[in-house]
Amino acid sequence: MQTRAAIAYQAGAPLVIETVDLQGPRAGEVLVEIMATGVCHTDAFTLSGDDPEGAFPAILGHEGAGIVREVGAGVTSVKPGDHVIPLYTPECRECEYCLNPKTNLCQKIRSTQGAGLMPDGTSRFSIGGKPILHYMGCSTFSNFTVLPEIALAKVREDAPFDKICYIGCGVTTGVGAVAFDAKVEPGSNVVVFGLGGIGLNVIQGARMVGAGKIIGIDINEDRVEIAKKFGMTDFINPKKVENLVEAIMDLTNGGADYSFECIGNVNTMRQALECCHKGWGESIIIGVAGAGQEISTRPFQLVTGRVWRGSAFGGARGRTDVPKIVDWYMDGKINIDDLITHTMPLDKINDAFDLMHAGKSIRSVVVY
Amino acid sequence: MQTRAAIAYQAGAPLVIETVDLQGPRAGEVLVEIMATGVCHTDAFTLSGDDPEGAFPAILGHEGAGIVREVGAGVTSVKPGDHVIPLYTPECRECEYCLNPKTNLCQKIRSTQGAGLMPDGTSRFSIGGKPILHYMGCSTFSNFTVLPEIALAKVREDAPFDKICYIGCGVTTGVGAVAFDAKVEPGSNVVVFGLGGIGLNVIQGARMVGAGKIIGIDINEDRVEIAKKFGMTDFINPKKVENLVEAIMDLTNGGADYSFECIGNVNTMRQALECCHKGWGESIIIGVAGAGQEISTRPFQLVTGRVWRGSAFGGARGRTDVPKIVDWYMDGKINIDDLITHTMPLDKINDAFDLMHAGKSIRSVVVY
Repeated sequence: MQTRAAIAYQAGAPLVIETVDLQGPRAGEVLVEIMATGVCHTDAFTLSGDDPEGAFPAILGHEGAGIVREVGAGVTSVKPGDHVIPLYTPECRECEYCLNPKTNLCQKIRSTQGAGLMPDGTSRFSIGGKPILHYMGCSTFSNFTVLPEIALAKVREDAPFDKICYIGCGVTTGVGAVAFDAKVEPGSNVVVFGLGGIGLNVIQGARMVGAGKIIGIDINEDRVEIAKKFGMTDFINPKKVENLVEAIMDLTNGGADYSFECIGNVNTMRQALECCHKGWGESIIIGVAGAGQEISTRPFQLVTGRVWRGSAFGGARGRTDVPKIVDWYMDGKINIDDLITHTMPLDKINDAFDLMHAGKSIRSVVVY
Repeated sequence: MQTRAAIAYQAGAPLVIETVDLQGPRAGEVLVEIMATGVCHTDAFTLSGDDPEGAFPAILGHEGAGIVREVGAGVTSVKPGDHVIPLYTPECRECEYCLNPKTNLCQKIRSTQGAGLMPDGTSRFSIGGKPILHYMGCSTFSNFTVLPEIALAKVREDAPFDKICYIGCGVTTGVGAVAFDAKVEPGSNVVVFGLGGIGLNVIQGARMVGAGKIIGIDINEDRVEIAKKFGMTDFINPKKVENLVEAIMDLTNGGADYSFECIGNVNTMRQALECCHKGWGESIIIGVAGAGQEISTRPFQLVTGRVWRGSAFGGARGRTDVPKIVDWYMDGKINIDDLITHTMPLDKINDAFDLMHAGKSIRSVVVY
């Protein structure tokens, strides 16, 4: 068959909208019609050429929602017509990682996925017989795409695609880091570094689980209003205090119970750890730092009881947890609508990158 | 009253054995006859002058066992004749820290203890009317000493003082880090950096809880034999492998479930983290690094699921957990006898420091 898709031919260049040849699903694979997809910083990172694992030509996009149209041999967990969210972190439920309750990092198809290929080592996309690579196992910048069965979360059919697509990455990353990784308890004081899309989702995750103070940190005050709407109780602009860590200690009577770094800056990662409460404060790194950069602190910070950890895809097991988050959205426990600041057709997808780079969007969504 | 004690008059000088005036216990305080005390690296660190908080003249020693001889007003948890282990980490059971199940770092008397004083801000020790400072709230290098009630663990009376004194610091620090902080599960692969007294106690703690592989790491092979006796299943000399982290990864099929740094070297702290298994490996820092030194790693290590934490006094709540560890010793679950390589009277206490500095002892114990 054929599908319309946005092709990333080379780093640094705009995406090109074209008709692509798409092979049907092989054994264990599923053909999905993508109905909507978010455009995420990770797509922009790969497109920029800074991603050392980035490869071209490829069909980017990893934050989608759609409908199953055809299943390959042996597929049992989804059927045509099912609504699904693609999972760049799959859940095979049989690898060493899936069987360990401490992690969500299923490794079943990691090597082929990292190489832009399906698990059998080939691509389903091509133009004129020349293969186009998959991306993060999803390639949601294509109206139709093929995914492994283990990379699909089946979700309820009354949820709007143009909102729940954001659960495919950003919402889960933020809300999940609070709920599944940190396991923030009611009444805990939470500090959030960075009021971008991830930070706002951490904030509403903290509100959902009943956190006490929810303190936002950003040098840019543009997001203060929406952050308050999402549950932020206090705000500190680091440029307006003499010592940020001390200001947080004062505001929390000794330090944060949990802090979340949602920027990707190694200096704020250190501050995020050191603003934690002696004895029990935990700092969770979500942001992705530049290649080769390192975090540092005095080991005394850890010996006196602080814990340093990280979070990927919010600690969510995709097939199990993503449908729950869709429920949380449909039940009004979390707000996605106000985070989706722009929608556009596929033809205008490059506008989404421009808006992101200009800091004018929280999330842009392409609707097919 | 008067007591014999070893006085640290100044940094870098040998201890001086003298008769010291000792005031009786005030309200909430207890007079204890110390029957035996270990000599620990921390005593040597303070005596060396490198401890920025070290103050002189003082009576050092924090790893003792003894008998209650007199109690001050209001003391209810111990009575004359009770056998006790002094606690440099007390357990008041009413401060914010004691009431938080995530930490053992009772802060009730921290400021006065750090200043070498009893909770009322004065010292009970003096010579010729001039005060001598307490140390770590214990001062077990004195035949008699006074401690706050909250700094005494009451223990069974059939346990030998010259062995269980080691539970006052080293045994609890190592065994407790495994049992109370890391909570190592049966079958877990454990890596232990440094085969000193703490490392050996981590090893036997890991054996006690049913760990799988217990891998010791040391550039000195003198301790391999006793480490095997304590439960070490594998040994790696970093000087004999090309890449230590890779060697550990190979031996553990992907990395340690838990690693413990028992050296105090920031470079091995990094190796200890990075040899942990992706997804769930946890590294626990026990060793104390030099002043101002920092640990570093790439944040990717944490984002992919490793956890970095520390441990102090093995995560033990002294009054609650130290009596349990005495039971473990009496039940033969842990071995203390083979770790106590030397015993001596108080008059020979300086020999204990010499043996330690020469690497000739695991633990020296002074018996009064």
